[in-house]
Amino acid sequence: MPDKPIIFNDPVYGFVKIPFGRVFELIDHRYFQRLRRIKQLGLTYLVFPGALHTRFQHAIGAAHLMGEAIESLNSKGEGITQEESEAAIIAILLHDIGHGPFSHALESTLVRNVNHEEISTLFIKELNEIYSGELEMAMSIFKGKYSKKILNQLVCGQLDMDRLDYLSRDSFFTGVPEGTIGSERIIKLLATHNDELVVEEKGIYSIENFIISRRLMYWGVYLHKTVTSAENMLVNIFKRARELIKNGEKIFATEALLYFLQNEVKLSDFSDNKLIINYYASLDDYNILTCLQEWMNSSDVVLSRLSTGIVERQLFKITMQKDPIDQDLISDYREKVISKFNISEKEAEYLVFNDTTENSAYDPIEPKINILFKNGNVVDIAEASDQLNISVLSKPVKKYYLCYPKEIL
Amino acid sequence: MPDKPIIFNDPVYGFVKIPFGRVFELIDHRYFQRLRRIKQLGLTYLVFPGALHTRFQHAIGAAHLMGEAIESLNSKGEGITQEESEAAIIAILLHDIGHGPFSHALESTLVRNVNHEEISTLFIKELNEIYSGELEMAMSIFKGKYSKKILNQLVCGQLDMDRLDYLSRDSFFTGVPEGTIGSERIIKLLATHNDELVVEEKGIYSIENFIISRRLMYWGVYLHKTVTSAENMLVNIFKRARELIKNGEKIFATEALLYFLQNEVKLSDFSDNKLIINYYASLDDYNILTCLQEWMNSSDVVLSRLSTGIVERQLFKITMQKDPIDQDLISDYREKVISKFNISEKEAEYLVFNDTTENSAYDPIEPKINILFKNGNVVDIAEASDQLNISVLSKPVKKYYLCYPKEIL
Amino acid sequence: MPDKPIIFNDPVYGFVKIPFGRVFELIDHRYFQRLRRIKQLGLTYLVFPGALHTRFQHAIGAAHLMGEAIESLNSKGEGITQEESEAAIIAILLHDIGHGPFSHALESTLVRNVNHEEISTLFIKELNEIYSGELEMAMSIFKGKYSKKILNQLVCGQLDMDRLDYLSRDSFFTGVPEGTIGSERIIKLLATHNDELVVEEKGIYSIENFIISRRLMYWGVYLHKTVTSAENMLVNIFKRARELIKNGEKIFATEALLYFLQNEVKLSDFSDNKLIINYYASLDDYNILTCLQEWMNSSDVVLSRLSTGIVERQLFKITMQKDPIDQDLISDYREKVISKFNISEKEAEYLVFNDTTENSAYDPIEPKINILFKNGNVVDIAEASDQLNISVLSKPVKKYYLCYPKEIL
Amino acid sequence: MPDKPIIFNDPVYGFVKIPFGRVFELIDHRYFQRLRRIKQLGLTYLVFPGALHTRFQHAIGAAHLMGEAIESLNSKGEGITQEESEAAIIAILLHDIGHGPFSHALESTLVRNVNHEEISTLFIKELNEIYSGELEMAMSIFKGKYSKKILNQLVCGQLDMDRLDYLSRDSFFTGVPEGTIGSERIIKLLATHNDELVVEEKGIYSIENFIISRRLMYWGVYLHKTVTSAENMLVNIFKRARELIKNGEKIFATEALLYFLQNEVKLSDFSDNKLIINYYASLDDYNILTCLQEWMNSSDVVLSRLSTGIVERQLFKITMQKDPIDQDLISDYREKVISKFNISEKEAEYLVFNDTTENSAYDPIEPKINILFKNGNVVDIAEASDQLNISVLSKPVKKYYLCYPKEIL
Repeated sequence: MPDKPIIFNDPVYGFVKIPFGRVFELIDHRYFQRLRRIKQLGLTYLVFPGALHTRFQHAIGAAHLMGEAIESLNSKGEGITQEESEAAIIAILLHDIGHGPFSHALESTLVRNVNHEEISTLFIKELNEIYSGELEMAMSIFKGKYSKKILNQLVCGQLDMDRLDYLSRDSFFTGVPEGTIGSERIIKLLATHNDELVVEEKGIYSIENFIISRRLMYWGVYLHKTVTSAENMLVNIFKRARELIKNGEKIFATEALLYFLQNEVKLSDFSDNKLIINYYASLDDYNILTCLQEWMNSSDVVLSRLSTGIVERQLFKITMQKDPIDQDLISDYREKVISKFNISEKEAEYLVFNDTTENSAYDPIEPKINILFKNGNVVDIAEASDQLNISVLSKPVKKYYLCYPKEIL
Repeated sequence: MPDKPIIFNDPVYGFVKIPFGRVFELIDHRYFQRLRRIKQLGLTYLVFPGALHTRFQHAIGAAHLMGEAIESLNSKGEGITQEESEAAIIAILLHDIGHGPFSHALESTLVRNVNHEEISTLFIKELNEIYSGELEMAMSIFKGKYSKKILNQLVCGQLDMDRLDYLSRDSFFTGVPEGTIGSERIIKLLATHNDELVVEEKGIYSIENFIISRRLMYWGVYLHKTVTSAENMLVNIFKRARELIKNGEKIFATEALLYFLQNEVKLSDFSDNKLIINYYASLDDYNILTCLQEWMNSSDVVLSRLSTGIVERQLFKITMQKDPIDQDLISDYREKVISKFNISEKEAEYLVFNDTTENSAYDPIEPKINILFKNGNVVDIAEASDQLNISVLSKPVKKYYLCYPKEIL
Repeated sequence: MPDKPIIFNDPVYGFVKIPFGRVFELIDHRYFQRLRRIKQLGLTYLVFPGALHTRFQHAIGAAHLMGEAIESLNSKGEGITQEESEAAIIAILLHDIGHGPFSHALESTLVRNVNHEEISTLFIKELNEIYSGELEMAMSIFKGKYSKKILNQLVCGQLDMDRLDYLSRDSFFTGVPEGTIGSERIIKLLATHNDELVVEEKGIYSIENFIISRRLMYWGVYLHKTVTSAENMLVNIFKRARELIKNGEKIFATEALLYFLQNEVKLSDFSDNKLIINYYASLDDYNILTCLQEWMNSSDVVLSRLSTGIVERQLFKITMQKDPIDQDLISDYREKVISKFNISEKEAEYLVFNDTTENSAYDPIEPKINILFKNGNVVDIAEASDQLNISVLSKPVKKYYLCYPKEIL
Repeated sequence: MPDKPIIFNDPVYGFVKIPFGRVFELIDHRYFQRLRRIKQLGLTYLVFPGALHTRFQHAIGAAHLMGEAIESLNSKGEGITQEESEAAIIAILLHDIGHGPFSHALESTLVRNVNHEEISTLFIKELNEIYSGELEMAMSIFKGKYSKKILNQLVCGQLDMDRLDYLSRDSFFTGVPEGTIGSERIIKLLATHNDELVVEEKGIYSIENFIISRRLMYWGVYLHKTVTSAENMLVNIFKRARELIKNGEKIFATEALLYFLQNEVKLSDFSDNKLIINYYASLDDYNILTCLQEWMNSSDVVLSRLSTGIVERQLFKITMQKDPIDQDLISDYREKVISKFNISEKEAEYLVFNDTTENSAYDPIEPKINILFKNGNVVDIAEASDQLNISVLSKPVKKYYLCYPKEIL
């Protein structure tokens, strides 16, 4: 265990200090080092070339912000102890440890009906065993069950360190300056009221800006048309690979990936078979993309075309609109790919597909972002804002889209 | 006239290039050099210590953006000529040349019923005479009367280079990162449609962010409570000084300032008496503040208290609220200052005063910010935005405030 | 071919504009898209977590700077034509296209005695054929043989766009602010003299800073102790893999990688066998790291330990010093690994190894960085600098190092 | 006294937190508020338009860095107490409180043979009396006499918080990115050895960069030719004003400025006459520039030409060279101004003048910047640096210059 704080160079914050030796040990663990090989924004780099930052960087950045937030709250008289501070930093450090590669796309494809929070819990439990129960408090905070509620909220809430870091970081690496949020300022204005996290009155405009920036990042980056197209292509690649394997075809894959393609792994399987978590722990962007490269040469035209699309960036065209896609258009395009690629009607569904996407920037359901006024009143930002815009922002926006290879045009 | 482009170091954009020799000559003129001595944000530095940037810097920054905007539009096939380009750059360079010191506060105090646009026009006319009519086209653009409407709109519109520069610059020097707008991106996405300035479809989120940032700068900086208090104190200082002079008292002042305090100068006076524009041209932040320093020692307690307030930053307390100020509170405070400072009821109005402030971030009245969709449709941002928030933002917000010296508490 | 400039978001410069359709087509080619999968700084991310930027980003950034430099030179009367401008942009865009994965480490390991410039030439030739000879001028500039010498120098010289971009970019993504160079300022101060690239007199301090920053990036980042250790481990991994294959062992590898491990490919082989360039074009960071992951489970303890070292960041300790490493120490450490890992003396050389590293920040050999004084004199920066420091900097610095697994301590 | 930390928006560091109420009270004092009206870089804004930042901003920034440095040292086991921390922050906050307006130029002109450190001491003594001796420890640190030497060195040494802040801040506001120093990194690498401030071994390159950046700021900004010309003009303005007053001419001036022009104030006078410190405390950039504006209309052609030169930026040409100025050239220019302005030979010396300027970036005399190696050795950077450049940098560089009005060319 190192005897003094470890410092990382971080392009976003300049420097990031890891104050506790235990935290440093966790960073050194192979489960955590794995996050170096998992990009935060999956395939987004195909549109924003700088978006190569990893969940490793994000987790450390969020842990850094947690330290700042606790220091800020303690300077206002909140008595968060050393032990709690370390636990909260560990909780946020590990909050995403269960993320798999390209998880936005593959979360429900590789592992059916298991989300990354559940897998994070599995990893944290495992680490807790390794460290003889020393991570109990961190685990309790991670699960939102710790007695000092604000710590839970700093890990998971409308204004948690996860969001503050990922918005800053994603904005930075995509090169989208409009996504800049004043995370430093927001953290300095955090306060507590009845053991709930609140923001001081003079932070109202920063919070409005935070919500608007988040929305901008959603539509401008996370749900960017071309990224949406790429992610759906990736999902179809793995559906197809699974299908081919089921049909008895031999497919290039690493041992771990093959396991998940051959089996329909459920959450309970992880507990029953220790091997699975190790397989899962060896999945990353590198072996996924390596498989795609090999699949470019597959004799299966669907798998080959889709894989080439991702590897050589021959992405599908995408039409996105407020109204449902015309069913005739879909049929027309499907017929075109059937004749173009000489494939079956069922196979055509891999190459011409439609779906919807939805987002609401501020979720009006609890927990809210509460503003603490100087007179002691606490009011939800949706009401505290001088204007109605924030409450209007809460309305989800739904969009319909259709993807298809440009060769058929 | 310099034979190659002049380059300024500019902390906001890195470097600013002045391409035309004529522009450089204008910058060198004493009317323009005067802007070096007029802060862009007046008394705002009393709250944001970095806000010391001047109208000189802003005007040059806006001229720089104009060059970028024209280059961007021309790269899309808009045929803006060299001559038009120079004229548009000169028009934006000189658009604020009529600003007096602390003009947000003093505009209607030093020169009655004359706004800075009218004085800018006077200065530009004067310069046009000096340059034998060479500024005709620039003047026409400045007045919004040039035949190529987009040039007028780049100088004065909802998305003009003035706004793009001042929002970026004010955000930068106040240290309010939430005010950051993607001016580079917006400029790259400018286009034209029926000789109207429009923004390409993929700029929607940048425009939303621009409008929100502008609103944030309004409430967070321009209409900041403490700044509002300071500005009102400054207005009262000059009202009082004028009154004392009327009553025959002798007051320290530079020759030029004395002229404006002794006379009620109207717009027409400028044309009748050439001396006046020269007097006006020698007013700046420096001689105003120097007078305030001397007035700190005035035997008039009102003038002295208010001047000390600005110079030594003993600013009045301010209460700001959505509802009108209680008349009883005002009376109560006035009585307190009467007894505290041993002054008359009428004099008390200088030390306890109330008013309202109002802002609407996006003015729904023409000219609008229009979005050009790929299908050729042009739609106002208030409708193009996925959500209603922008249209709601257009509703003006009114606030009431009351200022008073803290000594009476 | 797109009908208007393509814009990339670039965190370093904000936006990068690709002005010519032909350039855009080249970017779209799979040879160039491959650079998305090759990190600029190889294994440096193991020390600077943000250093994940790719040769794709660098090449586009350098092309952007080339456009700026040509605009700057033309604004000073240099008559670079549209055609030359496109050719120079293409030359810099493609200058690194022959880089393989982790090339700093693997350049002479995967392909014997062939450097990346030679492979870049092969790729450019290939592309020139595809585009029916349209890249002739670009190729001539790339080879430094074009008649207008300054274009050659902008692609390859002491102050070329390659260096200006990589120093800015590496400094940005590693989060080492001391590496910041004023590339914008340097470009604005470029000039020509007798068809040689020179820098205007007032750029002296910027050039000094550039040289010092470069040196700082060398010792602080490129030759960082821990990075040096990791790179040497990677070299040994591939030496060992090649040896195992020679000994008839079966090893996991992609088809392309296997080819290079089984054969000792020489430069002439590329011309003789078209397959080879395609194999080479499919090598990237992804398949290299995927192999390392699989090799972690190899029965060969050398291959397994080294691979685990890179994948799970269990890097070797490294001692770096000005004097040669004590031979007894090496022997002692080798004996320790022999007993610890139960391996042969020869195998021990893979786990305990020593070498030297050398750098000189400014190469006093031609081409020099010349300063153009106002009086028309042209002087090398090493003499133009007020002080002798730059000439002293030219002396190469040599360091000795020894690497070994920490398990033996 | 405020009950929680006061936060300033600072464009350089984002936010600056003032942790102690006593510090906040000192900031509120009119002696300190005065620094809001004194630009850090005097007339430099005539060349770098953004250089309008004040000694107020610098002092608060340095106090902020002091807090960071103490936190960093304490995290390494240095036991700096709360009381010492507050005292050190106060010492650095007040270290420049004796600076007068344009002090680089006017220091020995307004007050003969008294430097700003001596006046700072006077002000601090005065404040110590006001606060009943509470500033004793701060004063001891300021004077370099406190028992814990590192605190003295943090206030005044080769690597003190003064330098770290002013280099960062001046680089930021002038827009000279090459001046960027890694102050955050340097502070994190501070350590102590035998109660001396040292820098950890891995900070060597940052220190080299710091020294080089400082040198660059000297030659590029602080000793910039045009700034040197302007400063000398200002000195001559005040010499001339003083002379005119001696000759019985009546001159516009504020009461305080008049006192210093009429009398030759010595250091001892400040103690003898309490009025003088108050006069001094009311001098600032504003009343100086206001006087210059009025003096533009003086009947004395020397005073008028020089004053117009500063106010309307009609600066004198300056020739700067390594060799002494040719005496004949000076005579020739003097004769030209005599005939051009119809003045005496003695008066001509105000308009054509020559002098020398000198700088050495790293002062090899104690105190040195010491590097602490991992093996415990402490070595001066001039020797620790791999190369000799730093020791060479220590040699002072001398330049000769001549200034004259361009009208005579």
